[in-house]
Amino acid sequence: LGKFKDEVVNIAKETKKIGKDDPRRIIHAAKVGLALTLVSLFYYFKPLYDGFGQAGMWAVLTVVVVFEFSVGGTLCKCINRGCATLLAGALGIGAEYLAELTGKTGEPIMLGFFVFILATGSTFARFFPYLKRRYDYGILIFILTFSLVTVSGYRVEEIIELAHQRLSTIIIGAATCMIVSLFICPVWAGQDLHILVASNMEKVASFLEGFGDEYFHLPQGEVDDANTSKEGKLFLQAYKSVLGSKASEETLANAAWWEPGHGSFRFRDPCNQYLKVGALTRQCAYHIETLVSGYTNSNKQAQTEFHKIIQEPYSKMSSEAGKLLLELSSAIKNMTHPSSIVENHLHNMKSAIDDLKSVLQTSNHSNNNNKSNLLDIIPILAVGSILIDIIHSVEKVSEAVHE
Amino acid sequence: LGKFKDEVVNIAKETKKIGKDDPRRIIHAAKVGLALTLVSLFYYFKPLYDGFGQAGMWAVLTVVVVFEFSVGGTLCKCINRGCATLLAGALGIGAEYLAELTGKTGEPIMLGFFVFILATGSTFARFFPYLKRRYDYGILIFILTFSLVTVSGYRVEEIIELAHQRLSTIIIGAATCMIVSLFICPVWAGQDLHILVASNMEKVASFLEGFGDEYFHLPQGEVDDANTSKEGKLFLQAYKSVLGSKASEETLANAAWWEPGHGSFRFRDPCNQYLKVGALTRQCAYHIETLVSGYTNSNKQAQTEFHKIIQEPYSKMSSEAGKLLLELSSAIKNMTHPSSIVENHLHNMKSAIDDLKSVLQTSNHSNNNNKSNLLDIIPILAVGSILIDIIHSVEKVSEAVHE
Repeated sequence: LGKFKDEVVNIAKETKKIGKDDPRRIIHAAKVGLALTLVSLFYYFKPLYDGFGQAGMWAVLTVVVVFEFSVGGTLCKCINRGCATLLAGALGIGAEYLAELTGKTGEPIMLGFFVFILATGSTFARFFPYLKRRYDYGILIFILTFSLVTVSGYRVEEIIELAHQRLSTIIIGAATCMIVSLFICPVWAGQDLHILVASNMEKVASFLEGFGDEYFHLPQGEVDDANTSKEGKLFLQAYKSVLGSKASEETLANAAWWEPGHGSFRFRDPCNQYLKVGALTRQCAYHIETLVSGYTNSNKQAQTEFHKIIQEPYSKMSSEAGKLLLELSSAIKNMTHPSSIVENHLHNMKSAIDDLKSVLQTSNHSNNNNKSNLLDIIPILAVGSILIDIIHSVEKVSEAVHE
Repeated sequence: LGKFKDEVVNIAKETKKIGKDDPRRIIHAAKVGLALTLVSLFYYFKPLYDGFGQAGMWAVLTVVVVFEFSVGGTLCKCINRGCATLLAGALGIGAEYLAELTGKTGEPIMLGFFVFILATGSTFARFFPYLKRRYDYGILIFILTFSLVTVSGYRVEEIIELAHQRLSTIIIGAATCMIVSLFICPVWAGQDLHILVASNMEKVASFLEGFGDEYFHLPQGEVDDANTSKEGKLFLQAYKSVLGSKASEETLANAAWWEPGHGSFRFRDPCNQYLKVGALTRQCAYHIETLVSGYTNSNKQAQTEFHKIIQEPYSKMSSEAGKLLLELSSAIKNMTHPSSIVENHLHNMKSAIDDLKSVLQTSNHSNNNNKSNLLDIIPILAVGSILIDIIHSVEKVSEAVHE
């Protein structure tokens, strides 16, 4: 019994967490409930056509299947469903008409043949990347409707009657979804993409800002001790989620394609721009991943004298890159042009690289004798080199944002 | 007209390419066509129950919606659909019974209330990662069936009759799908995962094997010239697809969870093991990405004397790591234990690191005077450091494969 209680408490905790992470989820769930209740009651009170069974069913089915989290997703499915039903219905009637011409024995053979050809062809079409991205659901509905119409066994006149009825119920269902989705706390996929890209940049930025301190100031060993510096660790881990963000960015961009212009999102172009900035940000995250693993591997070494020499330029490079990214991400968030501070950070970043170069040059000349072994400083130099790569990536991000 | 012709030729070319890339796609499309034709004709010839309309429709609908590319995906949807329909039907009848008790005026209010609560709760449940991964489709069908049953407006006895009929058609549809999917050229998600992981390792391996030659032998400038070394470039680009492979690996693993043991896949455990190996391989790919960008940035430099010193150990490190990975990937492919050659490569890899160390040490002592500036060799050293990281990652992969 105690175990069961624990289980319940765990589930309650997770429920709370999921709701808290994104309160729009709760609203979304209620929206689905609302749309479904509306459609259900509408058909419950108005048993149009031949009783409830047939007609209302399609409206309920449409609502359940079509309602997506974002406005773009819902519109995509509604439009796909509507167009595919119309097209497949028309084709189905044509096929039925042709099959009727062949007489009683030929009809089922013809129909089976049509269904096979169309289902095979359409299923194959779903493998085309372009069609898959935009019209996957539509193709599914196309196959479905075509098969239903051709195999229904009705005569052509009956089918037209049926098609009219079914289309109108689907439209009622789809319209309910669209209205609820658009006018009650709409969730714009475009906006989500925008926020995701900006927050990914922030995560990378906060890593870069914190990296200098982490690398130089932490006493040895503490890195493996998660408890002592948990707070510190958390923001250093955040960038990891950026590594795998490609799929979700693309899903959002696909959904956003269907959304009408709204608010400050008048055009569709920004979507591709966001994807580009997102990809460049991910590039930075890849570099950071390498940086971290190199850093973890080399961590066992004592802080050498050489560390002190390069501490200043390294910290500056990393933190300036972080600040620049943070500035850019807030520019994206607020849809403003990046302020002139960006230029400052860009300049500081580059001068930090120059500093590093001159520091290395002087250390090279003056310390030739007591200089520590080249071997020991390799990992440290590698960090510097990767930091330079990161700075190059950040510069590219900055260029992309300016577009 | 010429433009139209080009378009057609393009589409034909792409069709051919998609079919060639994975011939199972063509077979899959034909399988869907076959299953659909079978079910359609079955209901066309046997207008069971009250004519075709109602009953056969559900079978057709089930086939279209449930048939997935892999066996695991199809089974997942079939089982989800069956269980959810049963459960929601039972609950729906209970709700209908309760609502009937409240009398004529109370009934619609109660029903609306039930639908709202259930739809909202279930939609929210879809946000739980665990439920989303395994039972997303089941929850959708649960909402659908519950709404359909409660709002159908039938009395309880009628509903039981209807439920029986609908369930049997769904079972016929689902069974057809499962049989066609299982017995005609089955596509196992587990096997696909297996192949994907192995081929990702191969891609990383072929990069590492080729990297040494690419880095040291190519004349300057040619790197930007795609035409001259296109063949060479292709295999150096292949690793890029590994970077974003996380999502597809997880999808396959989820589908594979539903598959029964078959052939050499008797247990489910390997799936998690594959995911682990896949993640470690991706780690290597991240490092390679950094390596490449660092290498591209530093490419403008002339090949210094220092290049010659480190050429031998670098090439060896990289190629040994590549060979090791290739060996491991073929061990995974053939489901055999890694052969003893792996130990050799592991040993060679480590001795290559030692070689590098001693080379650097001697160069440090002997060339102090004419040694090129520390600054110039930083990118080269960084490459070495990243190679060492890659070797560490490869070692981890090797450990994971041995499990």
